[in-house]
Amino acid sequence: MTTDLNQLAVRLQDFASARDWERFHTPKNLVMALAGEIGELVAEFQWLTPEESTSLEPATFDRVRSELGDVTTYLVRLADLLGIDLVGAANAKLDESERRYDADLYRGSARKAPPLTS
Amino acid sequence: MTTDLNQLAVRLQDFASARDWERFHTPKNLVMALAGEIGELVAEFQWLTPEESTSLEPATFDRVRSELGDVTTYLVRLADLLGIDLVGAANAKLDESERRYDADLYRGSARKAPPLTS
Amino acid sequence: MTTDLNQLAVRLQDFASARDWERFHTPKNLVMALAGEIGELVAEFQWLTPEESTSLEPATFDRVRSELGDVTTYLVRLADLLGIDLVGAANAKLDESERRYDADLYRGSARKAPPLTS
Amino acid sequence: MTTDLNQLAVRLQDFASARDWERFHTPKNLVMALAGEIGELVAEFQWLTPEESTSLEPATFDRVRSELGDVTTYLVRLADLLGIDLVGAANAKLDESERRYDADLYRGSARKAPPLTS
Repeated sequence: MTTDLNQLAVRLQDFASARDWERFHTPKNLVMALAGEIGELVAEFQWLTPEESTSLEPATFDRVRSELGDVTTYLVRLADLLGIDLVGAANAKLDESERRYDADLYRGSARKAPPLTS
Repeated sequence: MTTDLNQLAVRLQDFASARDWERFHTPKNLVMALAGEIGELVAEFQWLTPEESTSLEPATFDRVRSELGDVTTYLVRLADLLGIDLVGAANAKLDESERRYDADLYRGSARKAPPLTS
Repeated sequence: MTTDLNQLAVRLQDFASARDWERFHTPKNLVMALAGEIGELVAEFQWLTPEESTSLEPATFDRVRSELGDVTTYLVRLADLLGIDLVGAANAKLDESERRYDADLYRGSARKAPPLTS
Repeated sequence: MTTDLNQLAVRLQDFASARDWERFHTPKNLVMALAGEIGELVAEFQWLTPEESTSLEPATFDRVRSELGDVTTYLVRLADLLGIDLVGAANAKLDESERRYDADLYRGSARKAPPLTS
């Protein structure tokens, strides 16, 4: 993981340890906590048009930033406990996607559901 | 964002641009893509006991690593488009949590639902 | 629950019992299974415009119907184990919403995020 | 759909119509609202052990019932707009599952991830 993600992971270790909360932090539980936070993030966008979602009102932006902070927190804590490098895992998936979705072939196509990854 | 997260964000910009897929990447759509990937991650853990989730079988571990790569990909792409620093947002939430959940008060308590953030 | 939902609940009891899978069906696990199926449903809609989502292509429609079947299955199994009447719970929430969101007040307002429930 | 689910669907039509909120109720938006409510449901269970989840404390039970009401509300509204019979879709998936997972073969097996559906 990058330096900053590592620092965040260590901060989360200390936070949990200082409160004796490590016993709650099984990967199963943390995956659920992550899913709960994603639900809050989705709720911020549910009634917005796609266009509105590209230029959020200030109050919405602040709540979205806060939710993204929560999501990042649980994601980094989970990855730390599992021993998984998030950025490494993302780059590995992108290597695959670049092979699978040839740029010349897909550029300008009417294909409806282009993933970043698969 | 950290150097590595920034590099990942730039790689995702280039990936989308080369395929003319930027028009699909509204924040609303990316939040949905992120929620979809989280669903796949949750499915990997749904029948495991908490104990089993702490020591994954190799095949499960590989799928979980792959799903975490997908989650990270969409999270970083979303944050990049919104102009939000994920690690900064996470640290801001942790500053709040450290104030709210006093370590001496919570240590060893029987409190059932200790969050990392709120 | 309605007769049909009750019949579905009984069918799911028999299905689990015949395979000795009841031990996997804790509420915690079933909530995760439900979240996983919702993730698959969200993925079907992630790149569609709101307009496209109102008139699905036949192949997409079939996959959405199948995902809604999965969602209903886990939702009914979960509610059955918890002893919760889904339709009764929904009507109770709507009673609240009708009090909270006065029709004359909200009709035609520019309010951006109207919930069905809260 | 069963009579009760049909009655709930009609009540939701009237609720949305009386407030001029139908324009917000695209399938894409309703899928997101459903995912948001599932996130709140998951959050109720995230720190519970599987055993604790089988006998909820009264306050937790009430919140879970309320969340299941919200989930049912959005699920029925979505299915109504798409013209999909939820119970019919669930039974169709169970027909498949009964063929796929032979009871004699799976009974008592050590298989780790038995789905209700696939």
